[in-house]
Order: sequence, then structure tokens, then C-alpha cells
Amino acid sequence: MMMRFDGRIGFPGGFVDARDTRLEDGLNRELLEELGPIFNSLKVTDKDYRSSQVRDVPQKLVTHFFTKELKLEEIEAIEKEGVNAKDHGLEVMGLVRVPLYTLRDGFGGLPAFLCNNFIGNSKSQLLFGLRTLRLLREDQIQDAVWSSQNI
Amino acid sequence: MMMRFDGRIGFPGGFVDARDTRLEDGLNRELLEELGPIFNSLKVTDKDYRSSQVRDVPQKLVTHFFTKELKLEEIEAIEKEGVNAKDHGLEVMGLVRVPLYTLRDGFGGLPAFLCNNFIGNSKSQLLFGLRTLRLLREDQIQDAVWSSQNI
Repeated sequence: MMMRFDGRIGFPGGFVDARDTRLEDGLNRELLEELGPIFNSLKVTDKDYRSSQVRDVPQKLVTHFFTKELKLEEIEAIEKEGVNAKDHGLEVMGLVRVPLYTLRDGFGGLPAFLCNNFIGNSKSQLLFGLRTLRLLREDQIQDAVWSSQNI
Repeated sequence: MMMRFDGRIGFPGGFVDARDTRLEDGLNRELLEELGPIFNSLKVTDKDYRSSQVRDVPQKLVTHFFTKELKLEEIEAIEKEGVNAKDHGLEVMGLVRVPLYTLRDGFGGLPAFLCNNFIGNSKSQLLFGLRTLRLLREDQIQDAVWSSQNI
């Protein structure tokens, strides 16, 4: 995920605009701007589509969530090349990995991460992604959410 | 600042140990481990010392706070080379810049950033640094803190 210009944590992405024929075109354009030149070759496709959410407040918006499996070398390349992205230091204040574990104290790791300040529905998108991609078991996700709400 | 392994935001640094003759030795060792090889040449000295804080809970600890002015190229080099640091992906989940502005909505930017989950006294160290280094005016800091507490 990333620290955004507005001080909140979120996923890379953005608005589709008139230049974009398809949702994926808009997303790939935003990924190129925010994560850098590696997204000239790495592309998100309709196979990576996961879900959509509609909301009315604070503004009418339909958000579409995509996930893409990357090799460790690709993640490291994005972390390294991200500084060359057009939006680095402007929209993007830094990239962060999500801790997918809970430390022995029962709070450090994912529960503490969930206590950060997230934009819009990005925290629920994160949990939805962890669940549907089976990166964590259902009981692990529920425990982490519970711990994050009961410090 | 950085996203830590435990899901909280904090400054790079760590415990002084028996190898370290001086506080600065321990800090420079930790900076090398956490931010990467650029800290073989870049060194924090006693001139960069800012403050100390003593605490009893949850454990007895004296924390020492140092700040160092860097050129933009040095910051970008740290962001780029950080992926080569020994602790990258382990203790350090990513580096983030701190937004030193408030957006028109009166909350996005520094106020929203202050609503993230910080380790120990790192949020008060951040505000102390912004104040004493005069990176922001006193009224700007107070407004941001007030906004962060009154969403």
C-alpha cells in the first residue's frame, strides 16, 4: 500500500478519465504515474478484477478493486524504482508493505497496522483481498480486526 | 519516517548495545541496518542531538532524538537504496515522507497523518522536531494537532 499526499494510507489508483477506454486503462495509467516506469511492462488486466463498491457520501463514487500477484523481485523493483515515478513525493509519500502476521503481544503486526488512518474503503478492500485471496485464514483476519478494535 | 514491522509508524533507530561506544555509534549502526549502505558515508554526530525522554511504562527506557538535515538528492538516494538495507522487508516495511501542509479541507495532510498509529513517543518527537527546527510555525503545529483530535 502507500502513504498518500493527504496523510492517509491507501492503494495506488485513481479516477478513470476521458482518455481511458476501459477501467484497466485508467488503472494502468495511474499505476504508471504513482509506482513508476515498471508499469510500462507490468499490466493489470480484467482477470485481476476483484470487486466494486458504490457510495453516496461524501461524494457519489464507484470504486473498483483489483489485485495482482507479483514475484518478490517485482515488488523490490517497484520499491526501488518508485522514486522515479511522476507522482513520487507529490501524491505518493512512500510505499509500505502490509504486515500479515501478529506479534506475540497479540497487537503488533496486522492489528496495529489496521489502527492507521486509511482513505475511504481501502481498509475494507485490504481485508476483502486477504480473505478472498486466502492470504490469511478467516479466523486470523477476525482475530486481527478484533484486536485492532480492543486495545 | 518509516512503517515498522509492528504496523506502527516511527523513526529509524533502535537500542544501543555493548558494541556501541557512544550513542551516535549505536544510532549510525541502526541507520545502516534500516536505511541502507548510504549510511556508510552519511553519519549522525553529537551536533545532531536534539532531546531525550525518560519513561517507565511499558518498560524503563531513555529515548534520544537526533535530527539531520539532508539534501533532496540524499533523501531520494535513501528512498532508492533503502531496499538494499539489511532490515528492509523485516524491521522496515517502507519509508514515508511526512506531509508538512494542510489541505483545503482542513484535515488532509499533517492532521490526517497525525491520526496514524505511532510507536512510543515518536509522534511527540515529530512535533518537537517540526517546532524546534522551525519547519512549521507554532500556530500551524497547534492547528494541525487540534484538527487531528477533532475530526
